[in-house]
Amino acid sequence: MAKEKKKLRLVEPPADAETRIHDDHHLSVRLWLRMLACTNRIENVVRQNLQARFATTLPRFDLMAQLERAPQGLRMSELSQRMMVTGGNVTGITDGLEKEGLVVREVDPADRRVFYVKLSTEGQRQFRRMAAEHEQWVIELFDGISVKHKNQLVELLGEVKQHVR
Amino acid sequence: MAKEKKKLRLVEPPADAETRIHDDHHLSVRLWLRMLACTNRIENVVRQNLQARFATTLPRFDLMAQLERAPQGLRMSELSQRMMVTGGNVTGITDGLEKEGLVVREVDPADRRVFYVKLSTEGQRQFRRMAAEHEQWVIELFDGISVKHKNQLVELLGEVKQHVR
Repeated sequence: MAKEKKKLRLVEPPADAETRIHDDHHLSVRLWLRMLACTNRIENVVRQNLQARFATTLPRFDLMAQLERAPQGLRMSELSQRMMVTGGNVTGITDGLEKEGLVVREVDPADRRVFYVKLSTEGQRQFRRMAAEHEQWVIELFDGISVKHKNQLVELLGEVKQHVR
Repeated sequence: MAKEKKKLRLVEPPADAETRIHDDHHLSVRLWLRMLACTNRIENVVRQNLQARFATTLPRFDLMAQLERAPQGLRMSELSQRMMVTGGNVTGITDGLEKEGLVVREVDPADRRVFYVKLSTEGQRQFRRMAAEHEQWVIELFDGISVKHKNQLVELLGEVKQHVR
């Protein structure tokens, strides 16, 4: 059962996800680890900035972003599905935001067993302020990449997204 | 202070990170949300497969992957830095893996206050079995993308990685 082939061939000090790349790794694994490394770096910058500027976390920001996009409100199950980052307990985050008056839970008039979560007016205001800065951080992070290369990446990643569906 | 500009223009039912894209969003934000959407989809498949096939989690797999790449062992601080996924408490994961005999903690003979974490022989064996399957999943996930496009992506993401450094 155990693979006998020795896979460890150290070439340089490891630094991130790509440290997992061995010479015989398939191109797809190389691509995946590079995607992960890039996403992880940008995510870390965004996390640090959210903490430093707004004393908030990425899962909280992500949850508010999903609600901003759904002014009609979302059920908890829909909200969980749409979250883009892990590491957050959706119920716990919602409770916290509700306590701070940034989101509200509303009963569905058509089915009183169902709750919808929405941004409060204050939540909308706070989110827009964060989103505007977030946009600036991202623009700065990708500043060194040409428009041509960014467009190519958007297109190629669109293909990836379609295939992974 | 509050932004007056109305940003909500719903065009289709939202499904993932890209639901945050508004017409006036900068190309960089579009690119970032697409990267996040792709990474998230692939990560979810990998998480589900790790759970179904090995009853393990992505942070555990990630931690073991970092240790496999560092046969000399890693301090806890180094290990934390190298982790590619969030949502895991490195000390907690290490404790769990140690209890199962998959990692060992060793005292640095040069400085007895310092501990190194290493994969045990059994940990190496288990990791290699998981890594071989993981490689297959990733190959399958990217199966529909041409080698040319994969190479383009590796190159363009390399540029991103450099700039975000």
